[in-house]
Amino acid sequence: MDSGSIAQRLAKKQKEISVSEFFERNKHILGFDSPTRALITSVKEGVDNSLDVCEEAEILPEVFVQIKRVGRDEFRIVIEDNGPGIVKKQVPHIFGRLLYGSRFHSLRQTRGQQGLGISAAVMYAQLTTGKPSLIRSKVRHRDVAYEVELILDTKKNRPRIIRQDFVVWEKECGTRVELQVRGRYIVGKQSVFEYLKSTAIVNPHARLTFKDPDGRTYVFERASDILPPKTEEIKPHPQGIELGTLLKMAKETKSYKMTAFLQKEFSRISSRVAKETLDKADVPRERVPKRLTLEEAKRILQVVNKIKIMAPPTDCLSPIGERLIKKGLKNVLGDQRPEFYCPPVTREPTVFAGNPFQVEVGIVYGGNLPQDKPIDILRYANRVPLLYQQGACAMASAVEKVDWRRYGLEQRGGHGVPFGPAIVLVHFASTKVPYTSESKEAIANIPKIVKELENGLRVCGRKLGTHMKRKAKKAKTREKFDIVQKILPEIAEKSSKIVKKDVPDIRKTITKIMNVVWIDEEVVFEKRRHKVTVKIYNYTPKGQKLNLHVVVPPEHFDSNTCDPKPKEIKEDGRITWELKRVPSTEIGYATFELFGMDEDEYDETELYISGISPTSVVGAEPLPGDWDLRVKPPTVEEITEEETEEELDYDEVEEELVDEDDEVDGAREEASSAG
Amino acid sequence: MDSGSIAQRLAKKQKEISVSEFFERNKHILGFDSPTRALITSVKEGVDNSLDVCEEAEILPEVFVQIKRVGRDEFRIVIEDNGPGIVKKQVPHIFGRLLYGSRFHSLRQTRGQQGLGISAAVMYAQLTTGKPSLIRSKVRHRDVAYEVELILDTKKNRPRIIRQDFVVWEKECGTRVELQVRGRYIVGKQSVFEYLKSTAIVNPHARLTFKDPDGRTYVFERASDILPPKTEEIKPHPQGIELGTLLKMAKETKSYKMTAFLQKEFSRISSRVAKETLDKADVPRERVPKRLTLEEAKRILQVVNKIKIMAPPTDCLSPIGERLIKKGLKNVLGDQRPEFYCPPVTREPTVFAGNPFQVEVGIVYGGNLPQDKPIDILRYANRVPLLYQQGACAMASAVEKVDWRRYGLEQRGGHGVPFGPAIVLVHFASTKVPYTSESKEAIANIPKIVKELENGLRVCGRKLGTHMKRKAKKAKTREKFDIVQKILPEIAEKSSKIVKKDVPDIRKTITKIMNVVWIDEEVVFEKRRHKVTVKIYNYTPKGQKLNLHVVVPPEHFDSNTCDPKPKEIKEDGRITWELKRVPSTEIGYATFELFGMDEDEYDETELYISGISPTSVVGAEPLPGDWDLRVKPPTVEEITEEETEEELDYDEVEEELVDEDDEVDGAREEASSAG
Repeated sequence: MDSGSIAQRLAKKQKEISVSEFFERNKHILGFDSPTRALITSVKEGVDNSLDVCEEAEILPEVFVQIKRVGRDEFRIVIEDNGPGIVKKQVPHIFGRLLYGSRFHSLRQTRGQQGLGISAAVMYAQLTTGKPSLIRSKVRHRDVAYEVELILDTKKNRPRIIRQDFVVWEKECGTRVELQVRGRYIVGKQSVFEYLKSTAIVNPHARLTFKDPDGRTYVFERASDILPPKTEEIKPHPQGIELGTLLKMAKETKSYKMTAFLQKEFSRISSRVAKETLDKADVPRERVPKRLTLEEAKRILQVVNKIKIMAPPTDCLSPIGERLIKKGLKNVLGDQRPEFYCPPVTREPTVFAGNPFQVEVGIVYGGNLPQDKPIDILRYANRVPLLYQQGACAMASAVEKVDWRRYGLEQRGGHGVPFGPAIVLVHFASTKVPYTSESKEAIANIPKIVKELENGLRVCGRKLGTHMKRKAKKAKTREKFDIVQKILPEIAEKSSKIVKKDVPDIRKTITKIMNVVWIDEEVVFEKRRHKVTVKIYNYTPKGQKLNLHVVVPPEHFDSNTCDPKPKEIKEDGRITWELKRVPSTEIGYATFELFGMDEDEYDETELYISGISPTSVVGAEPLPGDWDLRVKPPTVEEITEEETEEELDYDEVEEELVDEDDEVDGAREEASSAG
Repeated sequence: MDSGSIAQRLAKKQKEISVSEFFERNKHILGFDSPTRALITSVKEGVDNSLDVCEEAEILPEVFVQIKRVGRDEFRIVIEDNGPGIVKKQVPHIFGRLLYGSRFHSLRQTRGQQGLGISAAVMYAQLTTGKPSLIRSKVRHRDVAYEVELILDTKKNRPRIIRQDFVVWEKECGTRVELQVRGRYIVGKQSVFEYLKSTAIVNPHARLTFKDPDGRTYVFERASDILPPKTEEIKPHPQGIELGTLLKMAKETKSYKMTAFLQKEFSRISSRVAKETLDKADVPRERVPKRLTLEEAKRILQVVNKIKIMAPPTDCLSPIGERLIKKGLKNVLGDQRPEFYCPPVTREPTVFAGNPFQVEVGIVYGGNLPQDKPIDILRYANRVPLLYQQGACAMASAVEKVDWRRYGLEQRGGHGVPFGPAIVLVHFASTKVPYTSESKEAIANIPKIVKELENGLRVCGRKLGTHMKRKAKKAKTREKFDIVQKILPEIAEKSSKIVKKDVPDIRKTITKIMNVVWIDEEVVFEKRRHKVTVKIYNYTPKGQKLNLHVVVPPEHFDSNTCDPKPKEIKEDGRITWELKRVPSTEIGYATFELFGMDEDEYDETELYISGISPTSVVGAEPLPGDWDLRVKPPTVEEITEEETEEELDYDEVEEELVDEDDEVDGAREEASSAG
């Protein structure tokens, strides 16, 4: 056959593939690559939907999950919620059609975004067990629920109804799904139980009930009756959007002028910014958007990515928050008792390709965590735990890029997952989570995101490093102290005996040798309150005066309990004392109380000092230069075009951070050797 | 708003998403997550298509790739081939429509399978630069080529033609694509150049020309004028197919009886097997397939997965082959000179979910490869190099699961990517590559596949381990030898002087102390031939007789050059000599020549011995028990239902292999200590 007729033959084979046929053949892309994972994926798709829809309807979620064994490797999964229900007409489409949903076109932080998940589970069910799925849904104020048995016709990507009916259901409203799938039920890591437990931790407003194949029921009780603040739907942020997207939006807008178009269709473009942008881009303000040319659009994007535009609004994001991160970490620990909880870091929101996102990081360290294993990484995206594909995930890439050696962990060559007794929790919240595949288990390595994750990890890592250094420094000083306090009195006694004089008071001598102000804190939990006492031991030969600064969780701080009275209490929990002079060899105090936390929710305070040479202080850090700048609202001015590039940038950031760190470390080392 | 009206409100937001809108928003899933990767992905999609279509038309591929810089971060990509061309009517659909192609429904080993790649690149181009793509194609025997400028209408997932024309093109036939994309051009690892180079290595029948943005031209010349054997399209293998798939096939078949249906629509089901299956499954042989019930289908699958069915035909697969694997490894090495090339392993084909697949593994070790880094893993799927997402890939998972410590590499805790001076090359060939996402950079962690990859790695790893042990043993014996040969003569001399007698011949004494048969080989390259000399040093006190067995590449073996004449030469390159007795302290020889290889293509022979106690031999292994069973055709009888499960299975395999290895190791240790 010559190549002319081959072209003809090939032409005959060309055909369209329906999206459902595509995914039927590639079910592993949807998260159904092994029987164990298929079971988790099915549950996850149902539960994610239930939580999303309850929050959208502002209902405190009650989700019931049951897994019944119906064969050696066949299970029936039930997921039932108290959500608002689904109107009859929509039920078959939502469950029996891929790429059909309500959340794809809206920029909001939701768990599901693709319109793929639950219908993919329905498809997997029929593919592996031949059984249709059963859905029941009731809308409030209706007498009956709608019940339908359906399969997904993969040739057409449309639902095929096997049976439908109206039935009486005692529930006021809600939705129940039953799927029969081939699967494998396991316990332990990467199990349905673990997924539900992890979900409960970061969704304390939800009540989850799980009945396992052996009929045991587990209830994850609600820890809070308050729904997370409702996330708002937003317009895209102009920075980072694609040229093609801008052109398409201009074609489809209802605005008649470019100024109005920019203001209405994007977030954070004021009338002033719109005019400035158009003028700088040399595009007439009155230009009809439909007539926008390719070159004009390019110039607009160039300008937009250079000028200062406010960061995206933050009410579209729902971070987990420092307290729940700590709780989340505590929970996975079980019997393990780490020595140190790094104060969790919730970064300011920033933006990638027009989408706001926010990174949170928590680290625990030491105690009886395993010493000789790679650290554990707990990954969450929009409050959903990610259990698979860690190796493909931007969160893991970011962990691997940070040089953890400087924060006290072992890491061969300064990259890769470090070894040591630590667990890192990372949460990525965004109006659009760029998953690497439809199975939603790993975040794509988008340079902007990896960099921000790295920054979050470094900030938290530096706290770990500070703790480790402080610990090492204290241990060293303590050792010196112990020796001095043991040997000097003995020498004094012996020499006194020899010269037959009274033993002198050597406290002054000791202070001369030590020459250090030792700051220590004591946290006592009593009557549901944390009582914190900061002690200032003056082991120098003269009186010392200093300012003490602490950072406490403001919502738990009782300002009436402070003794002495602080000079300043800021709303964000920063407190400053001007302490009176502590005479040589004596001790100064500052105390305060915190309320409303569990005992293990608080164990250490960030302590800073000023008004004294930091080289003579052990146990508190010098007040950082940005103490007063901390809570300044951020801008996205730093997002220049340069930053959309990748490799180069990493190096720059790396170097910047190296310099910064080195300086701090240098200062500390000086302090240490001088003290 | 109460939840009833919320259900109404939500219903209004429900809508269908077109597949192109979905991927436009999720372009990172298609491999466009950073400007660097976007450039590679675009080139890759074009080149993969060109190679596929040339092979299909049995044309030796000539592919031209050019990247022109048209802006700071904007590039024009040209990909031109000498393939059969595309008929006019199909051009717009192939390039302007997602999920449209010829290879989705056929079970054949091809690079592209999804009908997504090149149209995704067209979509990425218009999204980032606003520019349409230009396609020109000419079918043989036509006077003119068809040229079209088009974009992809993402709302409809249909091509929109901007301009079309017929033009004169000097080429006899072929296709040329021009895409203008935002990207970033880099050199080094994960670059377009590296991708093309790696592609050239495993596709030696293709001639690739690359013109980089600076106008430099690189030609990867064809190393072979022979196309790889054409891969045949096959029917699915019945083992591992899904219940839903069987039911669907039964509904759609044109056969009137179950026996005919099973025979015609599946590979490896003979009339006998079809009858046996139906009888055992208690399904009437005459049953009309359309009437097959769910329960009957289930029983058929149960039977099919238990009985013995021939492995899938292998002519649908095109492995790279041991020689090219070695070449591929040599190429990436550049200036690095490893000390040892493990003989590459090409495993027998096996099957997952009805799809045949085959695993190949090569390892190089030592020399000046970096000692203190994780080993490099080179991944290939259907002759396409995979450059991204290693962490998500089954190939990497398999490497991490193998305990490399027993093969002489450093690996903390016996899992994870090992450290050491080694490079591992893995190739996965299949009629269906289950990629984790549409970007086709990582293979899903399907238990059956991971296990087979592990097995391949272990087999190759064991060769590395054998080499390392042999090396260690030789070094130890050599040390002993050196000492004995140095000290004994001195002692002899001194004692002779003292007793004033002649110095005795101590060779016999040395052999008594050494008591070893030392086998060594020498490879000399002369006149384009490898001359191999195996020497048998008899350092034992008596004469020794033994059989020597070697394995050589049969296609390069010149049987006329053997001296002495072997007892047996098998077609697959296994050669056996019955050597005549070698007297004590003398040396025996066996020589042969190999032709047609480059100097560095051959450096070591697999040597085995029999007819002598292996404990007294250093430098060759005892003949393995399966020497004569080696090339027996495989069956897939081992695929029982158990094996479709995951975790348990891994453990079992692990244990099996542990036992096996331990035994071998134990035997060797005994041998070593006895010797």
